[in-house]
Amino acid sequence: MALEARLTVLGVTGMPEVVRGDSIADLVLDRAELVEGDVLVVTQKVVSKAEGRVVAFDPGDPDAKRRIAESEAVRVLRRRGELVVTETRHGFVCASSGVDLSNVAEGRAVLLPVDPDRSSRRIRDRIRARAGVRVGVVVSDTFGRAWRRGLTDVAIGCAGVAAVVDLRGTRDALGRELSVTEVCVVDEIAGAAELVMGKASGIPAAVVRGVDPALLRDSSVRDEVVRPYGEDLFR
Amino acid sequence: MALEARLTVLGVTGMPEVVRGDSIADLVLDRAELVEGDVLVVTQKVVSKAEGRVVAFDPGDPDAKRRIAESEAVRVLRRRGELVVTETRHGFVCASSGVDLSNVAEGRAVLLPVDPDRSSRRIRDRIRARAGVRVGVVVSDTFGRAWRRGLTDVAIGCAGVAAVVDLRGTRDALGRELSVTEVCVVDEIAGAAELVMGKASGIPAAVVRGVDPALLRDSSVRDEVVRPYGEDLFR
Repeated sequence: MALEARLTVLGVTGMPEVVRGDSIADLVLDRAELVEGDVLVVTQKVVSKAEGRVVAFDPGDPDAKRRIAESEAVRVLRRRGELVVTETRHGFVCASSGVDLSNVAEGRAVLLPVDPDRSSRRIRDRIRARAGVRVGVVVSDTFGRAWRRGLTDVAIGCAGVAAVVDLRGTRDALGRELSVTEVCVVDEIAGAAELVMGKASGIPAAVVRGVDPALLRDSSVRDEVVRPYGEDLFR
Repeated sequence: MALEARLTVLGVTGMPEVVRGDSIADLVLDRAELVEGDVLVVTQKVVSKAEGRVVAFDPGDPDAKRRIAESEAVRVLRRRGELVVTETRHGFVCASSGVDLSNVAEGRAVLLPVDPDRSSRRIRDRIRARAGVRVGVVVSDTFGRAWRRGLTDVAIGCAGVAAVVDLRGTRDALGRELSVTEVCVVDEIAGAAELVMGKASGIPAAVVRGVDPALLRDSSVRDEVVRPYGEDLFR
């Protein structure tokens, strides 16, 4: 049969509640054997908790989330009812600056990591040091998008795996230059991982095994994925 | 180890050049054994070719692609240099109405299927009839997005697999209602498939095996994913 196993997505089960100071790399390695070339995807939620990016607010204040979101934003792009779409300091465009009140104690809000690419590099380096394997790391979050309903998981940080693959100059099967030239593989990896993590399953990490080795290189979401304000046609 | 195999993405290799009148279902089943619950992802390119959605143009005319794109659009949303971002009859917002000149003969352009949800249903029904297995089907295409560089594969049609999963009322591990309520799993499935199909590899179909059985239900991209003009904040 012409059906080749190419990619496997494995959920890391049995992760504990993550608290400030935890090493995500160690929590994963205590539970899962990673192999050279794996890409580990970790949700923003646990990375932020490990980094202490949690703030308290008055749960009786209906405006608390909006105010925290605006304090994390460089621009408020749209408001509609309770929805506020902002541009964060990282350059991400998302609802409420990524501030999240689910899976955290009452009266606590989880903010995005200060530098999710750096968070990714730290996890990758610790895995290399402890387990001796070179892996890619992606920190993922769940964002809405323009024009399409429903949210998907995308990469907010990465290390050791290409964020965007530039195919300029590549030719198609008929020898013509490809019209699609830049593919954001790191968002596709984050989305694939979401399919095994779900939202209520308590699986905050997944391993994507079998990624094309050509994609395993240094990279960052900030440099390759974030579209600067002036370059964007829809802001 | 707490590493559970949950999802496998398998490329369907050895597919021939697809021509008008081909049955995508048969071409896949001639090469791959599908099992109950698989989700077959097929690129728009081969679906359009099988459906004869190919038009001729003068390759010496530098404006040909733009004109074809505009004829397929209900609205032109943005222009910048050669880039034209349109809203198609289906309600998709994408570059050049999805018109594609790669992997097709010189002087030919491939248009989107007229009704990609219907294309998906036909493929699903033919697989059921011939192989006796219930599968999901996704027709994928490569679209850009606002705010983020690089393109990703998304679903333009589907059958037998949930487009959007509504988690309203679902509670997190701590018993609080989830703030993320609608996940577009069908776009995540399309993106996962792209990771094994690539752009120059000549693999136009992939099987995503191990999708949560709860996601296997009737659905359509048109009804669940396309955000109507008036509801969108960024058009």
